[in-house]
Amino acid sequence: MSDLNTTLALLTHHKTIRQFKPQPIATDIIEKLIATAQHTATSNFCQNYSIISVTDSAKKRAIAAISGQDYVANNGHLLIMIADQQRNQQLALAEHEPDKLLHSTDKFLAAVFDTVLVTQSLVVAAESIGIGSVILGSVLNDAQQMIQLLELPPLTFPLLGLALGYPEQDPSEKPRLPERAVHFTNHYPRKPVALTNYNQQVQAYYQNRRQTPRTTNYQQHIAQSISQELGNRADLAAIIQAQGFLLDFKTDREDH
Amino acid sequence: MSDLNTTLALLTHHKTIRQFKPQPIATDIIEKLIATAQHTATSNFCQNYSIISVTDSAKKRAIAAISGQDYVANNGHLLIMIADQQRNQQLALAEHEPDKLLHSTDKFLAAVFDTVLVTQSLVVAAESIGIGSVILGSVLNDAQQMIQLLELPPLTFPLLGLALGYPEQDPSEKPRLPERAVHFTNHYPRKPVALTNYNQQVQAYYQNRRQTPRTTNYQQHIAQSISQELGNRADLAAIIQAQGFLLDFKTDREDH
Repeated sequence: MSDLNTTLALLTHHKTIRQFKPQPIATDIIEKLIATAQHTATSNFCQNYSIISVTDSAKKRAIAAISGQDYVANNGHLLIMIADQQRNQQLALAEHEPDKLLHSTDKFLAAVFDTVLVTQSLVVAAESIGIGSVILGSVLNDAQQMIQLLELPPLTFPLLGLALGYPEQDPSEKPRLPERAVHFTNHYPRKPVALTNYNQQVQAYYQNRRQTPRTTNYQQHIAQSISQELGNRADLAAIIQAQGFLLDFKTDREDH
Repeated sequence: MSDLNTTLALLTHHKTIRQFKPQPIATDIIEKLIATAQHTATSNFCQNYSIISVTDSAKKRAIAAISGQDYVANNGHLLIMIADQQRNQQLALAEHEPDKLLHSTDKFLAAVFDTVLVTQSLVVAAESIGIGSVILGSVLNDAQQMIQLLELPPLTFPLLGLALGYPEQDPSEKPRLPERAVHFTNHYPRKPVALTNYNQQVQAYYQNRRQTPRTTNYQQHIAQSISQELGNRADLAAIIQAQGFLLDFKTDREDH
């Protein structure tokens, strides 16, 4: 294990790319990446995900406006990753099987698992051929508008975006938490793991990076990340349920 | 793209392994795999996950009993993947930042995303050095017992298991859905995509496989997968909330 093989080196040097060359990614390459990622493990072999390529420039701009990030419009290709129990609902109905379970927390989580596993395979597959990416949690800034834009039916939900493209930047690698802070044996630690050195490492990273340097350490970064208002994200619970998921939860917002 | 590079070939030939040689995976290899997977993209650089190695044989057997699968006890190494906002809560409290957002759907999903992305990186990293794996959604058969076994504090949740080991089987590759059934352009399809040929492919796979052959086609497989009782999985909503997550949902079961 002293030398990294090709795949380990690829994973170890992962960097999120947010500036892409204008060159679009060829359709056959996108199809090849998706065909590759389709081999990812899925929950009970149910393949509870779908992928939508957004090529319409007006839709791309609308999604960039939701995300608040110009790289959502300016990239080589934009994918939206959909948690999907709709296809299974159709198949179940054709077999005259009641679809009650598809509305459970269990099956929502299964769809989320499958969608996110495939997303990471797409990231790795793309990087292996020199294509960078950024995973876009920011599509959830307005999930309802995403649903309308992509004409998403019941039992589907737009979980993540994935912007792909040929890199136009070479950012420095962000230091990760020390392994002892994320990896435990047999039980969760009874006391918090001290992160003094890591706080300093992250501060040094932020101070030294080329773009938007600042003095934040890791603890301050985490505090800031939960100091913002949720905005439309406060409606996520109601929107997920309006799509037919997580019906074993209740909300006060069902009349919205 | 006509030739597959090493990483694309690895992803394309992924197979879940459920029979492992008794040989344990060396600790330094596990640590190397985790250090590699830690470079995976995380939501807003918040690293909302933890990983617990289960080496205690009584705990391993207890988790195998929850999963109902002997390969959960019989493998080279067992990891439990934890969605984790507890570490962030500690950091936020140290900065005197209110932790309200950590209890939202938004931050639960962020933790799920990070945990599942890292899980897939672990699968890929392991396969690159000849270690097979099976992702264990079955730990959710009794999430409450998992929480007790692993002493999981508030704002943590045991999302998935990952059994790793040197393969003792070479299963055939399961045919995936045709790309046109999972990949769309600009909007979700307005009519279901016909799966006649794929149904036949899956039926042929099940008929021809060495272990437990059967005649099920894909549509029948999906119908069967939602015909079972949820068992303890019906309590998932209440258990997730008892851990402090998804508090913007309500349940009828809050008194449990």
